Amino acid sequence: MSGNTFGKLFSVTTFGESHGPAIGCVIDGCPPGMPLSEADIQPELDRRKPGTSRHVTQRQESDTVEILSGVYQGVTTGTPIALLIRNEDQRSKDYGNIAESFRPGHADYTYWHKYGVRDPRGGGRSSARLTAPIVGAAAVAKKWLLQQYGTTFAGCMSQLGDIPVPFQDWTHVHDNPFFAASGDADLIAHMEATMDELRKAGDSIGARIDVIAQNVPVGLGQPIYDKLDADIAYAMMGINAVKGVEIGAGFKSVAQKGTEHGDELTPQGFVGNNAGGVLGGISTGQDITVSIAIKPTSSIRTPRHSIDKDGSPVLVETFGRHDPCVGIRATPIAEAMLALVLIDHALMHRAQCGDVKVSTPDISR
Amino acid sequence: MSGNTFGKLFSVTTFGESHGPAIGCVIDGCPPGMPLSEADIQPELDRRKPGTSRHVTQRQESDTVEILSGVYQGVTTGTPIALLIRNEDQRSKDYGNIAESFRPGHADYTYWHKYGVRDPRGGGRSSARLTAPIVGAAAVAKKWLLQQYGTTFAGCMSQLGDIPVPFQDWTHVHDNPFFAASGDADLIAHMEATMDELRKAGDSIGARIDVIAQNVPVGLGQPIYDKLDADIAYAMMGINAVKGVEIGAGFKSVAQKGTEHGDELTPQGFVGNNAGGVLGGISTGQDITVSIAIKPTSSIRTPRHSIDKDGSPVLVETFGRHDPCVGIRATPIAEAMLALVLIDHALMHRAQCGDVKVSTPDISR
Amino acid sequence: MSGNTFGKLFSVTTFGESHGPAIGCVIDGCPPGMPLSEADIQPELDRRKPGTSRHVTQRQESDTVEILSGVYQGVTTGTPIALLIRNEDQRSKDYGNIAESFRPGHADYTYWHKYGVRDPRGGGRSSARLTAPIVGAAAVAKKWLLQQYGTTFAGCMSQLGDIPVPFQDWTHVHDNPFFAASGDADLIAHMEATMDELRKAGDSIGARIDVIAQNVPVGLGQPIYDKLDADIAYAMMGINAVKGVEIGAGFKSVAQKGTEHGDELTPQGFVGNNAGGVLGGISTGQDITVSIAIKPTSSIRTPRHSIDKDGSPVLVETFGRHDPCVGIRATPIAEAMLALVLIDHALMHRAQCGDVKVSTPDISR
Amino acid sequence: MSGNTFGKLFSVTTFGESHGPAIGCVIDGCPPGMPLSEADIQPELDRRKPGTSRHVTQRQESDTVEILSGVYQGVTTGTPIALLIRNEDQRSKDYGNIAESFRPGHADYTYWHKYGVRDPRGGGRSSARLTAPIVGAAAVAKKWLLQQYGTTFAGCMSQLGDIPVPFQDWTHVHDNPFFAASGDADLIAHMEATMDELRKAGDSIGARIDVIAQNVPVGLGQPIYDKLDADIAYAMMGINAVKGVEIGAGFKSVAQKGTEHGDELTPQGFVGNNAGGVLGGISTGQDITVSIAIKPTSSIRTPRHSIDKDGSPVLVETFGRHDPCVGIRATPIAEAMLALVLIDHALMHRAQCGDVKVSTPDISR
Repeated sequence: MSGNTFGKLFSVTTFGESHGPAIGCVIDGCPPGMPLSEADIQPELDRRKPGTSRHVTQRQESDTVEILSGVYQGVTTGTPIALLIRNEDQRSKDYGNIAESFRPGHADYTYWHKYGVRDPRGGGRSSARLTAPIVGAAAVAKKWLLQQYGTTFAGCMSQLGDIPVPFQDWTHVHDNPFFAASGDADLIAHMEATMDELRKAGDSIGARIDVIAQNVPVGLGQPIYDKLDADIAYAMMGINAVKGVEIGAGFKSVAQKGTEHGDELTPQGFVGNNAGGVLGGISTGQDITVSIAIKPTSSIRTPRHSIDKDGSPVLVETFGRHDPCVGIRATPIAEAMLALVLIDHALMHRAQCGDVKVSTPDISR
Repeated sequence: MSGNTFGKLFSVTTFGESHGPAIGCVIDGCPPGMPLSEADIQPELDRRKPGTSRHVTQRQESDTVEILSGVYQGVTTGTPIALLIRNEDQRSKDYGNIAESFRPGHADYTYWHKYGVRDPRGGGRSSARLTAPIVGAAAVAKKWLLQQYGTTFAGCMSQLGDIPVPFQDWTHVHDNPFFAASGDADLIAHMEATMDELRKAGDSIGARIDVIAQNVPVGLGQPIYDKLDADIAYAMMGINAVKGVEIGAGFKSVAQKGTEHGDELTPQGFVGNNAGGVLGGISTGQDITVSIAIKPTSSIRTPRHSIDKDGSPVLVETFGRHDPCVGIRATPIAEAMLALVLIDHALMHRAQCGDVKVSTPDISR
Repeated sequence: MSGNTFGKLFSVTTFGESHGPAIGCVIDGCPPGMPLSEADIQPELDRRKPGTSRHVTQRQESDTVEILSGVYQGVTTGTPIALLIRNEDQRSKDYGNIAESFRPGHADYTYWHKYGVRDPRGGGRSSARLTAPIVGAAAVAKKWLLQQYGTTFAGCMSQLGDIPVPFQDWTHVHDNPFFAASGDADLIAHMEATMDELRKAGDSIGARIDVIAQNVPVGLGQPIYDKLDADIAYAMMGINAVKGVEIGAGFKSVAQKGTEHGDELTPQGFVGNNAGGVLGGISTGQDITVSIAIKPTSSIRTPRHSIDKDGSPVLVETFGRHDPCVGIRATPIAEAMLALVLIDHALMHRAQCGDVKVSTPDISR
Repeated sequence: MSGNTFGKLFSVTTFGESHGPAIGCVIDGCPPGMPLSEADIQPELDRRKPGTSRHVTQRQESDTVEILSGVYQGVTTGTPIALLIRNEDQRSKDYGNIAESFRPGHADYTYWHKYGVRDPRGGGRSSARLTAPIVGAAAVAKKWLLQQYGTTFAGCMSQLGDIPVPFQDWTHVHDNPFFAASGDADLIAHMEATMDELRKAGDSIGARIDVIAQNVPVGLGQPIYDKLDADIAYAMMGINAVKGVEIGAGFKSVAQKGTEHGDELTPQGFVGNNAGGVLGGISTGQDITVSIAIKPTSSIRTPRHSIDKDGSPVLVETFGRHDPCVGIRATPIAEAMLALVLIDHALMHRAQCGDVKVSTPDISR
């Protein structure tokens, strides 16, 4: 209820702050009998962790996960799975200079006004570091969805600032520091140069991320409020710095006519996917396709006008280690959120209607 | 849990189908002691009801609301407020021809696969008619937010298909059938002509709707998953036909730099509102600004390729009464959802931190 | 969240007051595809309704239920089932004299202090009349549990004031006005005489009720907080006037030794049921056995010392129609609560572990 | 939802197994601004921990708690407070002999049938060891309730097997190993001798525990399902081995008349407390009084008839370290559960009705 639990039947309660002793989560509702060890979770954490290229924060964290409960003899028991990640590189002195004032575009201001107290060390609870436990939890969800339905997830950056990154193939995603689904070396070089310039200029930039789930069972979702797409929008908008969410055709739907937008059906399957795999809030069995807009990082080295706690004008400049484009590390996080939404709806569907059916082909691909 | 309740502390559970005997809702959590009668609710229902212009469905419904409980001697008692709206114009025969097949872009397909049974009369539970009870419930929420904090809501259509509708002034919204915030008679005439053509062509069109909340207390929202913007995204994406949601600068954030996006602060207030009134998931006290993309209506009179329940190919053509642009009536619905999100977070804030503080000016307006 | 919804996956939200226009509920989460009509629900309501003997309130209510939604062509659709019962016999004038003071042992006092406003007509929301919608909802639950697992429910009064009512056979329950499982005509006559005396004396009396569920699947319940017995205790203590709850051996467990209490197992099943069908919070597959203590009605015709809203001393005497033993009509209500707990846990079990297994015999019977 | 979270607004999610690497919890919803350190929590854990006398399990655990998050510079921040307790004395070999069969009266049987897998080490998740994190969380709740309303908690054993322990004074509770509120040295000696005999005999015994909350605000609770007493019953029945719960007069209410049971009111306060501090599900401001029945421990050294996983008959005898009366350590646990229920309702009351009022005296004491 107080906003630190994600999901209803596969629920993940996270805890921790950027520079506290540890971060982690408790997963409640994982079905029993699934083989599970840290080796299933660590690779997903490694995709998200800081310091993997010069374009992201240089904070040094191994993000090593420890399973504290819920697994016996390598198999899930149906009881809570607690994941613990110790923070290793807390340089809280870096943040001393901003403890008394508010960074433009940052949660500093709202935390202070809400709670009357805030943990300024690395943004405290508002730090993107808190996406690590959720990525860990989603690794468990992904494993279950894969073995149960064959569901898989993928994601990529489709725009960096004003640079479009045309989709070529998912295989490229692992070959560059941006999760770009592109093998265009010139484009990647251009992106790298852009990031280098930004870093020098002490500025930051936004990004667009696309994520997809494949082999999704038909019938997941609820008809009115807990629509599958509503829960996806909730999950995505909850990621740090996200300002927009689209499902399927998204904002392009505005200018479409009904004859263009509505995906026709043949005995072989759907002939398009403007729906993004969701109709009336319930999965069609096609790919779920989602896009998100990520704003530029608010912590930048350029001085900006702001006020301090007393309301007096100040110039704020953030030192320390920050991602100049938080979008770069957002791809595995967006996949994680999508996986958590899907497992929750899959379990809910089992409760309501018994086990789920196979997916529906999208023959337009 | 099964998706028919909206909100946690001010929770609205709706029921009913488009062509059943009645629709309605139960509001649980309305604070006691507030004067309330049907006269507070009916005007909001009237803004949304069908048949108010030739551009929307011609179904004839008075949408007369009856309060069944929770009010004694004209004052809320703190116990559940049940609202009942009898359906008056159920022509279920209009839908007989589509009961055995699936309309492209419609929930027909997914309901059938999820439940193994569906109510084809007017789309059953998936009908936009089910937004009426939520608009009624939101009238109660709006009244409380207004008297408690002075919070007000407004909304308008900012794009109809490919026609942009530039914002001029909120006062115009009541002067045209589109909720356009524009006094440009030529533009309105163009919109009317476009709608007339579409109706003749048996086609439909999408729309973009903007909504705003003013005088919002600072500090509403939760830090991680129940972020205020995440709950807004959930609420908006849950409205029928919505395919995209933006907060503040939305997708424009992608191409912005940090020095441009982050709203600076002065002792007089914020000097911009790219944030859309939310930072780190918590309200800043500025206006909350939201945009949504609404897809074109899927029920159209143009024959389209589809399949029937047995998987055989069919041509589907929808007769009966439909909104050729569901976006036209979406403005009061989007306002309603925003109000329901805000009252829920306002009550949660009271629980956690005691009563809320005044709003923060946005001096860029 | 505000306490008017029972259950998580099969959730029932009720509304209404004793003397308002109507009472009712919305059932969310009923699985689709089950035949259902008012004829399935009305008999349960008739077992609970007032005026069936001279020993209960003489209020005249037909308690006729109308299904407003969620059923199409006689079959549940998976969407919310709304039940409506119009109040027919509201003599609110009977309560005028107690509107300004507090009845000893009654919710008058606490409602006034909590809400600052109360509906004195028949106790408003605190009236036992509000158990009608939950009995209606439980009729739906019972039907599903019966067809799915063969689960059945029974209940009886086992003590009236200081008169023990020894269990003979369930068949007797329908043959007397007390739900006594006894064919002892002298005992029944004694109970009738006791009630007649009490009514003349303007006093009231408590009762003990036993309820049982048979053919319960093994494995229902959660290990720590949502234990099956914890949820049963919650459900039972939530019934008006209940002051105590026991599962299995209940308070007799205090004086038992481990060698006596722990039910041994043989290949044929358990050889006793001190557990009451629950071990470690999870059903064993044996009968679930529950006992509850119901206090004497607080609204009595004997003058009692109390205070008014201003804190001044008053004598309070309640006129109007009341049950001199609320326990008399409690049996179908207690069965209803048990059924609602079981269906919720059955659906949860499906979500977590797939479909449930058969029950375990209790060979000690 | 999956039963490992207690509370809605002050919610505690626990994790861990008796013999896993660690146990702990995440507290979500603690109001910000309260001073908090491990020193506030450790004393409550010490009251509950094993090995404090020869009458409880001799397992050696320091139960040292570490706060992982939610506290900054000694003050709560409003974000989740994670508590971690490492298990130090896991002798899992002690349980090897029972891994393949089911102890009579134990959760072995139900876990196995529910999950298809179980952690036999010390009962895994069903162990009373899992009450440690909840006692830790309740220490936080108690501190907040004390500083906010002056609410205090106390508890005692009122019966050990068939030995009644008459209440004399709360001060005695700390002077004997049984939490007996008695200064009668002969009685304590008798209790000690009884326990010694039982231990020698390899048997176990039940107990009755009374708990009380004082200075409780009036108005806490909800009218229908989330009644304060319903939530207390849920909390208490959720404690390991509890088979019965009473509020106020409890089962004695059955034989009471209305003129006896209903507590009269004077301008100075209530003249009795048969209600146990709750009327109509809402606190009266009097003391909340609760009694619970605790069954004898199921793990005993006396051979008993049972079956193994294959259904074949076996004799089961439990070696290892067990409490011969789990009731002995139950007092601080029952207090903890009561505190958690009260803080949840206090926060809910703030959400619904603003801040709470002072308590009401019970002048009969």
